[in-house]
Amino acid sequence: MSQLINSQVLLNSRPKGIPQAENFTIATSPVVAPQDGEVLIRNRYLSVEPAMRGWICDAGNYSEPVGINTVMRSLAVGEIVESKDPAYKVGQHVLGMFGWQDYATMPASAIDRVIDTSKLPMSTALGILGINGLAAYFALLEVGLPKAGDTVLVSTAAGSVGSCVAQIAKIKGCKTIGITSSPEKVELCINEFGYDKAVNYNSPSFAEDLASACTDGVDVYFDNTSGRISDAALTLLNQRARVVICGTASISQWDPIPHGPRVERHMLVKRARMEGFVIFDYADRYHEGVSQLSEWILEGRLHYREEIKHGIEEAPDSIAALYRGDNLGKRLIKLAD
Amino acid sequence: MSQLINSQVLLNSRPKGIPQAENFTIATSPVVAPQDGEVLIRNRYLSVEPAMRGWICDAGNYSEPVGINTVMRSLAVGEIVESKDPAYKVGQHVLGMFGWQDYATMPASAIDRVIDTSKLPMSTALGILGINGLAAYFALLEVGLPKAGDTVLVSTAAGSVGSCVAQIAKIKGCKTIGITSSPEKVELCINEFGYDKAVNYNSPSFAEDLASACTDGVDVYFDNTSGRISDAALTLLNQRARVVICGTASISQWDPIPHGPRVERHMLVKRARMEGFVIFDYADRYHEGVSQLSEWILEGRLHYREEIKHGIEEAPDSIAALYRGDNLGKRLIKLAD
Repeated sequence: MSQLINSQVLLNSRPKGIPQAENFTIATSPVVAPQDGEVLIRNRYLSVEPAMRGWICDAGNYSEPVGINTVMRSLAVGEIVESKDPAYKVGQHVLGMFGWQDYATMPASAIDRVIDTSKLPMSTALGILGINGLAAYFALLEVGLPKAGDTVLVSTAAGSVGSCVAQIAKIKGCKTIGITSSPEKVELCINEFGYDKAVNYNSPSFAEDLASACTDGVDVYFDNTSGRISDAALTLLNQRARVVICGTASISQWDPIPHGPRVERHMLVKRARMEGFVIFDYADRYHEGVSQLSEWILEGRLHYREEIKHGIEEAPDSIAALYRGDNLGKRLIKLAD
Repeated sequence: MSQLINSQVLLNSRPKGIPQAENFTIATSPVVAPQDGEVLIRNRYLSVEPAMRGWICDAGNYSEPVGINTVMRSLAVGEIVESKDPAYKVGQHVLGMFGWQDYATMPASAIDRVIDTSKLPMSTALGILGINGLAAYFALLEVGLPKAGDTVLVSTAAGSVGSCVAQIAKIKGCKTIGITSSPEKVELCINEFGYDKAVNYNSPSFAEDLASACTDGVDVYFDNTSGRISDAALTLLNQRARVVICGTASISQWDPIPHGPRVERHMLVKRARMEGFVIFDYADRYHEGVSQLSEWILEGRLHYREEIKHGIEEAPDSIAALYRGDNLGKRLIKLAD
């Protein structure tokens, strides 16, 4: 095994704002043999997340920034090809923070969980059954607190989190309205993810379109963007509305903090609530989320999309590509079998 | 009774921003005799509230704006001098939205409650036992959710709401830090209202002073100001902090909405919550609040200040005076006995 060559995507410089391809280097080195208590994992799929921007930046975040000249932090799924830990055996499919690399030599404790690939494909562990689907599930249900009949407004509506939020909201009896970036994605929102309505934030009449769509106001605003999309959404809140801050995709830089219309009066007059959500706080309940989401998928009530790029050389540009909004569905990078 | 002359403060024009003396006119007219089901009340104290700005302005609010050429809406306490409703009798002390006027002829349903003046003075029904004290009580306890050991930061710290918030927080075992407008009020906060620390937002080193005061971060930020005071406070939030939006005293105009640093990243990274509070939502629990606050006052654990002006001619400038910050304690207008 130790003669294998590993390709690794290293962070070579700290971006100001959105990480670009030039912030990464692909380097090759021999695979390191696992020691006692370690496993060697052959990665099959690497994840690409909007949150990676935050993992890389210097500003305060919920995790330590990725170090310069270290492997880019990433969830991945792979197969154990060598095990020096009795709890794991060769051939098992596992999920964890294995990084953007072909092979990961890791302490067994780095494994988040063994994946059951008997009913749903391995890739789902990084998307609809990974932190995207789990974020949608816990953030909507625990912070958004949707009630049947509520109007749930979702930004990045066609994305892997947003599309899942909308479908869960629908299962819970809510009306769903999506905000997305193109007429094609408006169609996708309605036809594939079951939104009642969807509007294109790139239209010159966006604010008016949104107000027209939200005839009953907004009870839950599930926010993945911040910025001018939120500025328009917050004017439409109903009394006691809940605003879930799950991401800030429209803001390319938080240092210095960009300015926008102050939110306090909306919050006060509507007795509304705004609350931040980070999926890692729910780690001890992932099992519940995976189980419920799997059930809904198998029942045909929850659809998902994956957009799979092939080969590790796709990784360096992949975060920037997410922020360009040119993906339709969860972005994954598939490595050679 | 009906030969009595009533002095009334009428709204003569709608201000842009803070209501000024010139937005009001004092007019006299004969007192209207009460009909069946009505009472005639001789007002003793009129209230002055920062929230009156919102009651007057055209922009969306939690109540209908006061009409032009109508009596300024206001809580008041007074004595029933004539009753055409069997539920009330002459001599009772009552609280309600009786307006800025000497006499109020009102349906009995306009009475919020009969006041017990046997233990605490009548004026307290408009201050520490009125919507100021009740707002402090319910907003802190129900929205701020303070736990023993928490750091509670309060803006307009020496004001009638803020000073009460801090003392309740102290009773609940919290550390309290106040933000106020002068060195004199800093002293008042510490010596009279028991704040652990207080800082002056008019100092050039305000942001640094605040950060130095909040060495353990902020678990509850009780916000009565918005604006640059909040901008500084929000950078100091701890994980799972609660921000109570109770007022926006530092913002003179909300139309158009003023801009400031976006809050979403603070909310996200800290999993913090920001929520608006309007006291009228708790009307069915006022009794509980009055009872608990009275008990704390009688035990000497809750102090309050009143700043009493004499005569209805003080009313027109009184809202502007509040926003100039030149009061120390709950501002009331006492009418002739």
